[in-house]
Amino acid sequence: MDPTPLQPGRRPHVLIIGGGFGGIWAAKALHKTPVDITVVDRTNHHLFQPLLYQVATAGLPAPSIAAPIRQMFRGDEQVTTLMAEVSGFDLAARQVRLADGGRIDYDHLIVAAGATHSYFGNDAWAEHAPGLKTLSDAFSIRRRALLAFEAAERADDPVRQRDLMTFVVIGAGPTGVEMAGTLVEIARHTLPGEFRRIQPAQARVLLVEGGGRVLQAMPPGLSEKARQQLERLGVEVLLDTKVTAIDADGLWVERGGQRERIDSHSIIWAAGVAASPLARMLGEAAGVACDRAGRVPVEPDLSLRGHPEVSVIGDMAAARSHPKKGAPTAVPGVSPAAKQMGQCAARNLQRRLAGQPTEAFVYRDYGNLATIGRRAAVVDLSSPLGPIRFSGFFAWLFWLIAHVYFLIGFRNRIAVLMDWAWAYFTYERHARVVAGEAGAGGPIGPVRDPAVEG
Amino acid sequence: MDPTPLQPGRRPHVLIIGGGFGGIWAAKALHKTPVDITVVDRTNHHLFQPLLYQVATAGLPAPSIAAPIRQMFRGDEQVTTLMAEVSGFDLAARQVRLADGGRIDYDHLIVAAGATHSYFGNDAWAEHAPGLKTLSDAFSIRRRALLAFEAAERADDPVRQRDLMTFVVIGAGPTGVEMAGTLVEIARHTLPGEFRRIQPAQARVLLVEGGGRVLQAMPPGLSEKARQQLERLGVEVLLDTKVTAIDADGLWVERGGQRERIDSHSIIWAAGVAASPLARMLGEAAGVACDRAGRVPVEPDLSLRGHPEVSVIGDMAAARSHPKKGAPTAVPGVSPAAKQMGQCAARNLQRRLAGQPTEAFVYRDYGNLATIGRRAAVVDLSSPLGPIRFSGFFAWLFWLIAHVYFLIGFRNRIAVLMDWAWAYFTYERHARVVAGEAGAGGPIGPVRDPAVEG
Repeated sequence: MDPTPLQPGRRPHVLIIGGGFGGIWAAKALHKTPVDITVVDRTNHHLFQPLLYQVATAGLPAPSIAAPIRQMFRGDEQVTTLMAEVSGFDLAARQVRLADGGRIDYDHLIVAAGATHSYFGNDAWAEHAPGLKTLSDAFSIRRRALLAFEAAERADDPVRQRDLMTFVVIGAGPTGVEMAGTLVEIARHTLPGEFRRIQPAQARVLLVEGGGRVLQAMPPGLSEKARQQLERLGVEVLLDTKVTAIDADGLWVERGGQRERIDSHSIIWAAGVAASPLARMLGEAAGVACDRAGRVPVEPDLSLRGHPEVSVIGDMAAARSHPKKGAPTAVPGVSPAAKQMGQCAARNLQRRLAGQPTEAFVYRDYGNLATIGRRAAVVDLSSPLGPIRFSGFFAWLFWLIAHVYFLIGFRNRIAVLMDWAWAYFTYERHARVVAGEAGAGGPIGPVRDPAVEG
Repeated sequence: MDPTPLQPGRRPHVLIIGGGFGGIWAAKALHKTPVDITVVDRTNHHLFQPLLYQVATAGLPAPSIAAPIRQMFRGDEQVTTLMAEVSGFDLAARQVRLADGGRIDYDHLIVAAGATHSYFGNDAWAEHAPGLKTLSDAFSIRRRALLAFEAAERADDPVRQRDLMTFVVIGAGPTGVEMAGTLVEIARHTLPGEFRRIQPAQARVLLVEGGGRVLQAMPPGLSEKARQQLERLGVEVLLDTKVTAIDADGLWVERGGQRERIDSHSIIWAAGVAASPLARMLGEAAGVACDRAGRVPVEPDLSLRGHPEVSVIGDMAAARSHPKKGAPTAVPGVSPAAKQMGQCAARNLQRRLAGQPTEAFVYRDYGNLATIGRRAAVVDLSSPLGPIRFSGFFAWLFWLIAHVYFLIGFRNRIAVLMDWAWAYFTYERHARVVAGEAGAGGPIGPVRDPAVEG
């Protein structure tokens, strides 16, 4: 791979698309490299997605888990931040097109635009079953859940009250499990005492999973522990249950060969992700076919075939880990993987500038954590001594400490620790305030734009 | 006034419309009275309005200055909270109609629905110059201000950059002064270092006031101190300047007999309030004419003429203070006045139940505070020794302590103190995260529903 020819006096320009874990860690890893960097993101913030469900369940305010991207690079002349949407790639001209009509030239490109929801082809379900990937999603879910209780308090019909207080979470991965456990805690512990006409503790929370166990990425023993903890908290776990249709009033599922109807006003989709639409655009531009999840296939060094100056990382890349011993393995779509890919892409860029060969990506899997609710979690760690697995209270403490540690920003860590300490002792949840007003439709009438609100 | 006839076994039902300062303090004052209380509000929260400008300027997250109303009465069987919009009054039947079709009967009614913006008849201006009365307003202003800088960073045209970085606040009362001082602090201290193509410190903040001085409710000496502090911070104060037209790209003003054009993308209206539309409905139902600001005239004891069981308080009431000595005086539209009216209405209700005569409302004016920015404020207090007036750093400390003290909830006080301490030492603002994405219009394209977002 040739070093990039430099115009005298001009440093190479690295364009990074996406301010998530992949893009941000790539930028940080290039800190001492003599390049100029531009980070482009559609939003103005970097999101700590593992805690996004806490915003959706009113446990944390958005600023605690997100930081303005340009604030992260404050004072760093090397990095320019732009808030814009990418609309196309011109790989031959090394130029990216923006939706507002602008264009950005690059010498090197790192594409880290992440993932979005996948409804397995049933995109009409998105209207009734929002997913949880962005702050807008979290606000939408929070609003819908809190106002479901408000509407139930106003309702006269017990059937409507029951439907309003039935919550369905689809997909028993970490996000679904966390949402279900937290919703049941809100219903059983936070809200009772505040309503006079309904009993919030009677709310039902159902966790629907098409496969045979929850947390499929965990070893079976921990999956079983998680399921027990969920049921002890009050979640109804429906395994081997496939969703066949979703509408405004509930859903149809198939289990044991039978069709069943579940009426619900609040359905949350946590069952599938697909690569950002930019993956398809990039694949077409490069002449490579994306995989079933819409991800762009990449070379072992994370570059695009035929375009060594372009790297694709994170959830939008169909990347493989190439350990020294053994066959290549798939890379999970988790934050540590995106970070490591960002760092690998940065190192390979430095190697290209120096005329050295690039290295294949190797994923270091430190393990998996998932929390279920108060004092309940499962932890699966890799160690040189072998796997370390535990669950329950100490797993929950470990989960807490790990998530606070990895949060961006000292101030956020203090704020989140305080919020959690308060919530632990009082069961109060402190991000319950919802903008917007009741109207002719009651508290949850036709909400004009549920996706863009606080 | 006769005591309310009670059906055996049923307590009188007090309906309170509005969960602001007036309504909440009336409910609290009735805590030991043998009545049932229902509080109805269009939103799910009680708002500490004096600090709303901090949400609008990204200094505090919304949950720090707002509390869910039903959480405030948690466990208190006496108080039922409902989230609904009132659409009409049937005073003869003692019934209130709700927008969602429901109806609520009452024995006693306290109407405390507050105020909204007044554009002095030019309602079309509302689209281009949002006011600051609700959380939705604050989110809208915050989004517009933060994204104006983002769009300026993307713009190629220096004229557009300049217009995007020109902020106009209309109305130099406490809200306008606070907004202007904070915007200039953001531009001069928070954002520099984060942008590469613009210099945020070059942003202009104009404060436009039709009258001859800022903070007209303050004594002239303090008005002058406030104006000096504003100018020292960098605000351009335009007095004796009347707004004649507002459009999408700026505004026209008249000063010194001349018409002038100010181009701006971010205009904030802080110049006038009018009573809630419920005031007109109530006035019509009772056969009384509202005043020029749309407020309902009330008897000295805050009741509605001809309807002793109905009290109207707060910003929607044209109430007067009846001190023992001297003529009746107007009551300012400030939070302490609303609180005191709520307590007075509650006391008079207790007196009616006991068959005693009611008492006239007397407003205790403890003084006025307004902050301008960092280490700058003006304080005007009444004391038995006479007025105490001071400005500058100690006024600012006093303002801080007073506002934290009056915040609802111990946890919120700690959180706000921490946020402010952090912001003081670092100039960082921690509620800058905006949901929603850039698109074809750039960061601030056609925003679909700016009023309902986080």
